Amino acid sequence: MAHYDCIIVGGGPAGLPAGIYTCRAGFRALLFERMFAGGQITTSTRLENFPGFPEGVDGPQFGSLVHDQATAAGLALEYDEVSALTLKGDVKRVQTASGAEHTANAVICAMGARRRPLGLDREDAFRGAGLSYCATCDGAFFRDKTVAVVGGGDTACEDALYLARLTKAVHLIHRRDTLRARGVMAERVKRDPRIDIRWDTVVEELRGGERLESLGLRDQKTGHRQELPVDGVFLAIGLEPQTELVRGQLVLDALGYIETDRRMRTGVAGVFAAGDVRNTPLRQVVTAAADGALAATSVIEYLEERQSADDA
Amino acid sequence: MAHYDCIIVGGGPAGLPAGIYTCRAGFRALLFERMFAGGQITTSTRLENFPGFPEGVDGPQFGSLVHDQATAAGLALEYDEVSALTLKGDVKRVQTASGAEHTANAVICAMGARRRPLGLDREDAFRGAGLSYCATCDGAFFRDKTVAVVGGGDTACEDALYLARLTKAVHLIHRRDTLRARGVMAERVKRDPRIDIRWDTVVEELRGGERLESLGLRDQKTGHRQELPVDGVFLAIGLEPQTELVRGQLVLDALGYIETDRRMRTGVAGVFAAGDVRNTPLRQVVTAAADGALAATSVIEYLEERQSADDA
Repeated sequence: MAHYDCIIVGGGPAGLPAGIYTCRAGFRALLFERMFAGGQITTSTRLENFPGFPEGVDGPQFGSLVHDQATAAGLALEYDEVSALTLKGDVKRVQTASGAEHTANAVICAMGARRRPLGLDREDAFRGAGLSYCATCDGAFFRDKTVAVVGGGDTACEDALYLARLTKAVHLIHRRDTLRARGVMAERVKRDPRIDIRWDTVVEELRGGERLESLGLRDQKTGHRQELPVDGVFLAIGLEPQTELVRGQLVLDALGYIETDRRMRTGVAGVFAAGDVRNTPLRQVVTAAADGALAATSVIEYLEERQSADDA
Repeated sequence: MAHYDCIIVGGGPAGLPAGIYTCRAGFRALLFERMFAGGQITTSTRLENFPGFPEGVDGPQFGSLVHDQATAAGLALEYDEVSALTLKGDVKRVQTASGAEHTANAVICAMGARRRPLGLDREDAFRGAGLSYCATCDGAFFRDKTVAVVGGGDTACEDALYLARLTKAVHLIHRRDTLRARGVMAERVKRDPRIDIRWDTVVEELRGGERLESLGLRDQKTGHRQELPVDGVFLAIGLEPQTELVRGQLVLDALGYIETDRRMRTGVAGVFAAGDVRNTPLRQVVTAAADGALAATSVIEYLEERQSADDA
């Protein structure tokens, strides 16, 4: 058990920059990450729009760059899952799955958001048995096979393009008649002969034995039902915030994201949120990083005010 | 004379990322920069806190990376000074010092803010050679050295506190006998044993060879002159937003910054602002870049709504 100035929950594009800023200001910070430094970004193929990388940068490579930068700044990083947070009061308490318990004067919530499930029967059962939420993680298992991607946004398009390079065929299943993705990405998908787009179509059923074998589709305009044999399906129908740890402790918006002001302050003194987990208008790596810098700046202000009060 | 979807005024850490995002979405954008691609950042010695660069990156190098990325995305860039903006109405008009005139459906204001100079001899020569306008950017270069901060407001106090944790000694040089900074911050500075406040004192001279070596000070009450040896000086006597072009057209806050909502929209349809020129809570490269991405996202939304209206 140790005490820190600040504990950061989540080591993605918001949490790591928050660590850089907090530590560069001379405070002691500890970050918990349950998977890989870089968080979700490590599951992304290639970042093309993050300023400063004209050739683009691979997700895992970017994660490792920011990790190195944060640890060089003095950030302590532990690969452990936070199991409980106690956010009220002057001293915040952080418990982890491994049984550790630490305290801090300030906490930054940077848990991110994960891909939303379809909510169909057997979805959990087929997870890892043909059903995936991450093309870059699992795409290689479907080399020369037939896969479907469900969704129509940037992530769905990115997944479809990535999988088109590895697999035999990609069906992009989208419930609307236009892609929500825009510009370069949407054009690439529409022009790619390896990608077959099923417009106005929803997945009604996941079928198979031990592994997923086919999708039950329905055309929303005609009502026509069809079975589509696939070896795998990748879900990219949106995000849900990872707020299990803070429910009942912080104010969440209607979609479940943590509400903050523009300085990343939550309603609870000493608790801040940054990146995809908060009610941000845009979920990009650069906006998450800026959130991290803003949250750290507010942490620094908060800690300095506390020190002044203690000194008085 | 040409017409664009979007014209961006200012090619710094907000304007260039705005160009990347706008062009990657398939829109035609033109950016005006009067000095160097990268804007103010090209005058900073070294960026150590921008996520993705663990070894840091030189200001000019970063500027050139983002420039290359923006032009590769399709951004048109002209080195010309905008002399007049007409922001009302559906079609915005942009005139330049060279006599060119262009129109656009949307405008992003990214003109930045400058730290107010002291107006002393050799001020430009010592810039990056001991003289800095940004403690969070350059403070780490003065670890265990002696520095001075000039000013008495929030920024000066923030800079002094930030530098006190890193350096051997901080002299805060303020022309008045009370700090302009808010209570808590001021108290903290006054009580910090590492910060020596020189009240009623002005900097009259910057002395040194190739690097700044000392400050010529004058006590305004006694008239007493003194030489203060320092390794660095940080100027924090205020910022001035570069809003000459939009005065009378956009709502500015009490300090003269452009007011925006969290999506970077100004009160005028089709006009957006990003980075240091707006009423942002933090003026860092990463927050400016995020503003640029947000402004571009709002531009894209605005242009798409216009197209839908035109199609209808």
